[in-house]
Amino acid sequence: MAHILILGAGVMGTALAVPASDNGHDVVLAGTPLDAATIARMQAPAGTHPKLDAPLATSVRVLADDALTAAEADRADLVVVGVSSPGIAWAVERLNGLLRRQTTIAFVTKGLDRRDDAVVTFAETVPARIARLGTFIGIGGPCIARELALRLPTSSVYAAREMRDAERVAALFRTPYYRLAASDDLTGVEACAALKNFFAIGVSAMQTRYPDTLRADGQSKNPTAAAFTQAVQEMAALCALIGGRRQTAFDLAGLGDLHVTVGGGRNSRLGHSLGRDRTVAEVVTQELANETVEGIDTARVVAALLETAANATPAFPLAFPLAQAIVTAVLNDTRFDFDFATLHA
Amino acid sequence: MAHILILGAGVMGTALAVPASDNGHDVVLAGTPLDAATIARMQAPAGTHPKLDAPLATSVRVLADDALTAAEADRADLVVVGVSSPGIAWAVERLNGLLRRQTTIAFVTKGLDRRDDAVVTFAETVPARIARLGTFIGIGGPCIARELALRLPTSSVYAAREMRDAERVAALFRTPYYRLAASDDLTGVEACAALKNFFAIGVSAMQTRYPDTLRADGQSKNPTAAAFTQAVQEMAALCALIGGRRQTAFDLAGLGDLHVTVGGGRNSRLGHSLGRDRTVAEVVTQELANETVEGIDTARVVAALLETAANATPAFPLAFPLAQAIVTAVLNDTRFDFDFATLHA
Repeated sequence: MAHILILGAGVMGTALAVPASDNGHDVVLAGTPLDAATIARMQAPAGTHPKLDAPLATSVRVLADDALTAAEADRADLVVVGVSSPGIAWAVERLNGLLRRQTTIAFVTKGLDRRDDAVVTFAETVPARIARLGTFIGIGGPCIARELALRLPTSSVYAAREMRDAERVAALFRTPYYRLAASDDLTGVEACAALKNFFAIGVSAMQTRYPDTLRADGQSKNPTAAAFTQAVQEMAALCALIGGRRQTAFDLAGLGDLHVTVGGGRNSRLGHSLGRDRTVAEVVTQELANETVEGIDTARVVAALLETAANATPAFPLAFPLAQAIVTAVLNDTRFDFDFATLHA
Repeated sequence: MAHILILGAGVMGTALAVPASDNGHDVVLAGTPLDAATIARMQAPAGTHPKLDAPLATSVRVLADDALTAAEADRADLVVVGVSSPGIAWAVERLNGLLRRQTTIAFVTKGLDRRDDAVVTFAETVPARIARLGTFIGIGGPCIARELALRLPTSSVYAAREMRDAERVAALFRTPYYRLAASDDLTGVEACAALKNFFAIGVSAMQTRYPDTLRADGQSKNPTAAAFTQAVQEMAALCALIGGRRQTAFDLAGLGDLHVTVGGGRNSRLGHSLGRDRTVAEVVTQELANETVEGIDTARVVAALLETAANATPAFPLAFPLAQAIVTAVLNDTRFDFDFATLHA
């Protein structure tokens, strides 16, 4: 039995308590200050997370932020950070106040950062900010939190710089329904996990731009499949530019997570609206007002990545027509204009 | 302008007449004896293929089998074979009677064959059977024929042993809506094009086995995404065993075509029924009676491939849990029993 402290009671942090408690671990789920209402609701008898269907096992201890003490952190063999990307600064500060010894930390949170002239993942930028971070674990792969909490089967990948660390943490969470691969391509898993939100915008736009009224769901299928393939190929190339392995994009953290992200979630909803010729500014001030669309932030960083690459090799941007179309729509707030004629020209 | 003879008026052969005639080529579409009713219907004024929405360009000459002469074949710069896999023997015989000079032939037809102890593609077995086959071109990638005929955009890949042959034929068909990559991994493209039907059975089964009643389409998403990823990984390994490149499975002929095949077509419908715990024998004698489900034939060949590999390396079959589950359901007519617990064990 291990002691696992989950920081952040969002859907993903909360859902991870399910396999962890099924495996008999001692699990503490601690909310952020923003999770106060969620925590109060979950602390009621048979109380559920507002976005999940069933209560957690009674063995899981649910704490409000102000009840989380350094003594809890002292006991933890592993801390899981389950905040969304805008919450990462808060989580870093909270952990710096909380941790009194080197601790393994697994991050659900995904994003890309800029450091000097390079584009890097949280795996490069976060460790230096947390004084007592022992080992950084990245989590990727297709995993809608609500389905994980229902124990519907899926696969994911846990990554670390050293394979044995990835294996060790994956072993804590692996259940018959939550299948976990291990990877030592930490940068690649982190890069793909961020890039999939970005590419899901463009692929999802294809689901609405070319309707087929003879189909039950009203969608043609070829444009989405072709754009999905293009997204995977571009993701592999961008992953390599960021320092990860191309191969990682062809596996769970890349195409697997992209598959589940297209068609569901906020990035996909943005894409669906772009496919109907609306602009990013319209969508984020109307149907997605007050929601975090992580692919938009990623688009700004990808823009820098493409620019750096283009300066180094003038012919370069031609290799990224889908990424370029998404970047242009986000940065210029123009119609999403992905032209298939730019493919395989 | 080139002269293009399409043999077989199935949906794919007929749909390929659309980009070919849009590019200004002289196109002859010749039916097989089984296509007689379709040909008669298409020869009527403004007549359409029964499974396509709009008439072909009037420049396309539509011929019944008995009107196709060797003189037509003499003029052809390219013959496209558009029959389904059970029709390949007929097509070989017809071409042997028709061709009087070396001719480039592009095959839409896909399948795997056994030769001695090896599993091979049509690219290995068909050329020796056609006396005057000049260059063999394989066509792969995501392409629902009806959508191509509607000029909805997609990408595909044309493959040959020599890249310049693949490029030459792709250039004949490439339009702003039909984007064509070229590949010199002919065996890999042929292998993936056959394997995608097989794997679509298993991935599609995940779309019905784990319902989610809170979703509009009633389907959970994680199991399908995880199985899709597993299918792509296993396809890459099988592709390499057959003599193709792993990388081909990660591109248009592999994951791209698998993406569009899951959720539509006969292989997918078989999978949906298997996901509901019916058996292959039930499905092919009931809802799919008299239909060609190409993935079933492929399953028999994959069974031989897995057995050969297992004899060579005892630990081997563990790497193919999804393929093994599909093979077992087809060969033993048992419930499709894909257990996620066999993944990443």
